[in-house]
Amino acid sequence: MSQPRDRAGRKDGLVVLNGRRPATSVGAVWLVGAGPGDPELLTLKALKVLQGAEVVIHDGLVSDEILVLAPASARRISVAKRKSRHAYPQAEINRMLVAFALDGLTVVRLKGGDPFIFGRGGEELEACRAAGVECQVIPGVTAALAASAGAGAPLTHRGSAQAVTFVTGHASNGAEPDLDWASLARANQTVVIYMGLSQAAPIAARLMAAGRSGATPALIVENASRADERRIVTTLAGLAEAAANLDGPALLMVGEAMALAQAGEPAERVAAPHEARA
Amino acid sequence: MSQPRDRAGRKDGLVVLNGRRPATSVGAVWLVGAGPGDPELLTLKALKVLQGAEVVIHDGLVSDEILVLAPASARRISVAKRKSRHAYPQAEINRMLVAFALDGLTVVRLKGGDPFIFGRGGEELEACRAAGVECQVIPGVTAALAASAGAGAPLTHRGSAQAVTFVTGHASNGAEPDLDWASLARANQTVVIYMGLSQAAPIAARLMAAGRSGATPALIVENASRADERRIVTTLAGLAEAAANLDGPALLMVGEAMALAQAGEPAERVAAPHEARA
Repeated sequence: MSQPRDRAGRKDGLVVLNGRRPATSVGAVWLVGAGPGDPELLTLKALKVLQGAEVVIHDGLVSDEILVLAPASARRISVAKRKSRHAYPQAEINRMLVAFALDGLTVVRLKGGDPFIFGRGGEELEACRAAGVECQVIPGVTAALAASAGAGAPLTHRGSAQAVTFVTGHASNGAEPDLDWASLARANQTVVIYMGLSQAAPIAARLMAAGRSGATPALIVENASRADERRIVTTLAGLAEAAANLDGPALLMVGEAMALAQAGEPAERVAAPHEARA
Repeated sequence: MSQPRDRAGRKDGLVVLNGRRPATSVGAVWLVGAGPGDPELLTLKALKVLQGAEVVIHDGLVSDEILVLAPASARRISVAKRKSRHAYPQAEINRMLVAFALDGLTVVRLKGGDPFIFGRGGEELEACRAAGVECQVIPGVTAALAASAGAGAPLTHRGSAQAVTFVTGHASNGAEPDLDWASLARANQTVVIYMGLSQAAPIAARLMAAGRSGATPALIVENASRADERRIVTTLAGLAEAAANLDGPALLMVGEAMALAQAGEPAERVAAPHEARA
């Protein structure tokens, strides 16, 4: 998985990070999508940028298997948000990014999934811009794509999903999310709710009250793409009950195309064809 | 960028493709997202699967830089759809995938972006399932994520984009797309229209007629993540005029968070911090 730095440095038109800084330097911030969890779902570019990091500021959801890909010398700082008593407020994260960069360091802000899908990457980018710090963004495989691929349930599908919408079930005050239920209740589209597990019951109730059929296929994917991924195939009417037994990071996916989803543990699908025959 | 096969084969819990088939074998189909164009936006897993391909069936949008990563011995078949007189009907592609797999071959169906976002991957998966052919899906960075990252304009953003919706501007009969304009016209969300360039004028008109302000920030990204990427920052009212001079594959992106977008050619953003200082 490693790539010689000097070879990378010679590739034309690609990102160059050789790990050395000139004596008089200005740092920069890279907002990097680490993908959904499986280290193999990192992009080549994310890997390369991570290998050039001097400071890695990462979410709690980024796994050790990914963090180990940064140089041993890089300082690692967890700003875990999920269920952590040691979470940093967003403003503090913004200040850290800027401060390290102004100190001349190459800062990688490593975020689960994609930095610009419910990752608050926009706020961090704005903070960098306001401080005159260069900020580059590397996209990543957002969790919905991995969940859909793993389950074999397309997010768009001819005849049953002409659109896909990503929303968050997390409201900042812990209350029910304030979403456009009438729009989300329309048929022929897939709705993916990030961080919606604890609000599954009110979300399902709202969608049904707004007219979406309780028989609409639904899928919950916990820990998408990770070794402990779990999938539950259900319906909108069954969503709340299905969600009740889960507590990992999960996506709720509702829509007619979810009828193609296959339930099960990841072990069923991880083996490659050659491996299965060996 | 290459990775020794034997090392890959020894990694526990990861996909194994050693390029050799047992004498009595059943093939399989891998639906693989090639990402938006930049070869560095391939995932490590996509690269590994591609390196084990015996047949690569690819869209016209997949670049030569990516196709060269498959083994030299692999048969490559373009099923180009875009503006090609040699496009294959979907049913024929489905038949090819199944036929090669039943012939014992490892088939990689390589698709731009993500296989399950407007890639018709669901139809190919269904064809494989119907024929009893094993089919695995590798997610990819869909174009909207790369376009958003490149422009520095988040798809979701606190206070200005609580949701993001992907739709297609392409209607099968060449007519105006039949979309849920009232929903898409709501404020506080990002709407990304794939394959919408030729329909930019009616799309913008419909959105404004449904109540979305003409002053809503908008962004067009042509050839996202490629060397010839072009970005135009405009408004919903200016969308049609901005689209008129483009003809490459492009995304139309409309929403308040697009106010953060930076225009320009990719050369402005490709250089890494170290490179810029060298």
